[in-house]
Amino acid sequence: MTSPIEFYFDFSSPYGYLAAQQIDQIGLGFDREVAWKPFLLGVVFKTTGAAPLLNIPMKGDYARRDLPRSARRLDIPFVLPEPFPFMSVAACRATYWLMDRDAQAGKAMAKALYHAAFGEGRAIGDPKVVAEVAAGLGHDGADVLAAVQTPEVKDRLKREVDTAVAKGVFGSPYIIVDGEPFWGYDRLEDVSLWLESGGW
Amino acid sequence: MTSPIEFYFDFSSPYGYLAAQQIDQIGLGFDREVAWKPFLLGVVFKTTGAAPLLNIPMKGDYARRDLPRSARRLDIPFVLPEPFPFMSVAACRATYWLMDRDAQAGKAMAKALYHAAFGEGRAIGDPKVVAEVAAGLGHDGADVLAAVQTPEVKDRLKREVDTAVAKGVFGSPYIIVDGEPFWGYDRLEDVSLWLESGGW
Repeated sequence: MTSPIEFYFDFSSPYGYLAAQQIDQIGLGFDREVAWKPFLLGVVFKTTGAAPLLNIPMKGDYARRDLPRSARRLDIPFVLPEPFPFMSVAACRATYWLMDRDAQAGKAMAKALYHAAFGEGRAIGDPKVVAEVAAGLGHDGADVLAAVQTPEVKDRLKREVDTAVAKGVFGSPYIIVDGEPFWGYDRLEDVSLWLESGGW
Repeated sequence: MTSPIEFYFDFSSPYGYLAAQQIDQIGLGFDREVAWKPFLLGVVFKTTGAAPLLNIPMKGDYARRDLPRSARRLDIPFVLPEPFPFMSVAACRATYWLMDRDAQAGKAMAKALYHAAFGEGRAIGDPKVVAEVAAGLGHDGADVLAAVQTPEVKDRLKREVDTAVAKGVFGSPYIIVDGEPFWGYDRLEDVSLWLESGGW
């Protein structure tokens, strides 16, 4: 039994959105599960001193060009939601809450949230929008709104973020294959090659 | 007559070194000249607030792993020189000085300097090492040492750095194809695709 590919991402990370369109397909190609692990990049930024990408002079302008260009290359929709960046706490909590009841439902929720944010420009920083997205998948929106405020779910996310930081996850997307870390949407080809070759 | 591919890099940038192994081959494949444009990333960092990559917590550790891994994938040598990062002023000036006398000699010098730094771990921050590298290509080392101290050559580099900043070049490598910017070693595939397709 092989261990799953760990796919760390922040819901507010547009490059995470791009990677999210491809990571399951990569796992499938090598018969490997993909564990989707939303976390809060802002917590890590306190350690690295990094700032949200689009707020950085010059680099932000470039990203506003590179992101839609990269999305066009993948032939997927891309909209930068307003406000941006946004708080992804409710989205993370809702995903883990669903995931703990049904792994596939949790993954479907993560995909739907990413699509709502960067495919449709919806404000998933708002817990009410998170509940709407959940309702669109057949869940009870009110249950979701209640769940994300429980100490258990808050604590669940906190533990995931702590684990991510302990593993050295400092960016989004961040993918770990058998202990080997790959940072960035641009490393997906390396991820595939690593899975294929077992490393080099 | 098509315009050249502009290849901006800092001699102290290890990802620039990786890109430097491939950019001429890419140009050749599309019958395009590549203009090598060393510049000083430190000047740009004052605008973006960026820090040298390897000094950043977590990210630095990752890069120390990703760099040799990326070099192994390309089957090229990789050593991180000491000290690192280093001042690349003398290397830049020597390259432009040679380039203005003979474009191909300048490009050969840039390649030799990058190989000395990241292929062999030599301290090309030291003007004497720059002169040695030039001597290895058949140039007079004493001439190089003298040239990099002239106001003309100092000014030549200053103008290049100003132009780079004005063009929005904020990282290394940074490649411009017909006005379209691509940042990072990871965008070389996009560069090829852009040259092939004329954009998307």
